[in-house]
Amino acid sequence: MRVMGVDPGSLKSGYGIIEEQRGELVVIAYGVIRTTPHVRLPQRLLEIGTRLQELIEQYAPQELAIEDVFVAKNAKSSLKLGQASGAILLAAAQSGLRITEYTPLEVKQAVVGYGRAEKAQVQHMVSVLLRLQDIPKPDDAADALAIAICHHHSAKMKQQIENNL
Amino acid sequence: MRVMGVDPGSLKSGYGIIEEQRGELVVIAYGVIRTTPHVRLPQRLLEIGTRLQELIEQYAPQELAIEDVFVAKNAKSSLKLGQASGAILLAAAQSGLRITEYTPLEVKQAVVGYGRAEKAQVQHMVSVLLRLQDIPKPDDAADALAIAICHHHSAKMKQQIENNL
Repeated sequence: MRVMGVDPGSLKSGYGIIEEQRGELVVIAYGVIRTTPHVRLPQRLLEIGTRLQELIEQYAPQELAIEDVFVAKNAKSSLKLGQASGAILLAAAQSGLRITEYTPLEVKQAVVGYGRAEKAQVQHMVSVLLRLQDIPKPDDAADALAIAICHHHSAKMKQQIENNL
Repeated sequence: MRVMGVDPGSLKSGYGIIEEQRGELVVIAYGVIRTTPHVRLPQRLLEIGTRLQELIEQYAPQELAIEDVFVAKNAKSSLKLGQASGAILLAAAQSGLRITEYTPLEVKQAVVGYGRAEKAQVQHMVSVLLRLQDIPKPDDAADALAIAICHHHSAKMKQQIENNL
């Protein structure tokens, strides 16, 4: 199963694509979807949606995991974050991907084993679990890989539970 | 010019389509895009996006006007509203429509001539300006028509200013 993790943001969104190969997690690609600065909002959302659908076509993930953030600094930044996440969710749904949302707590729990882990601990564990020499940069891409790992673990656990029934 | 107004909401979004014919504003269609209750968010956003694109195909508006709300009750409802508005903006941009955002203040100013008008005054003026016997129902549809009227006025004024230059 190939999983795409997305860390949505109003200015830039991280993405990371992983896959299990011979029992080990392998990184397929990661990076950031940036939008053109000073461009009007509808155009920026179109850039995000189009780029995401290009990445989905290029790397063919079957599932998408996204961070379900519902606490931003204030109402205005929540709205902006919501608009980016709404565009990402619509674009992914249009591409036919199965989408699962995870809270930041669930992601930390899955990657570090501790829901209140620091950002640096999460990023360190991402590089360990994916056997990368360095921590993936920028942070948004590392966070997206963490979300993808969280989904991979969660899907495996569900599979095991089903097998044991 | 045929204008589609949209009043975005996380559970239902109003829409209203108007056109100037022989110097008078005429209603082409109005209604509400509802989503299936208890359905997961990505599926609901896909319903909104798909329905909006169907309406755009059916009624062929050239321009879309949307309410730019950035103050919701709290961060969580702002995020939900943002997700709906993000999906609507992306779907409209994908359909190639020119999109303009208006604040609630601008809509009231354009329709009632007074930025702090009550909701009931706005809805009454919508029925007067569009020569409707009754106030359009539900409220979301009446609000969407108000947004469309606001855009029509604003576009006409811009045109006049350009003609006078």
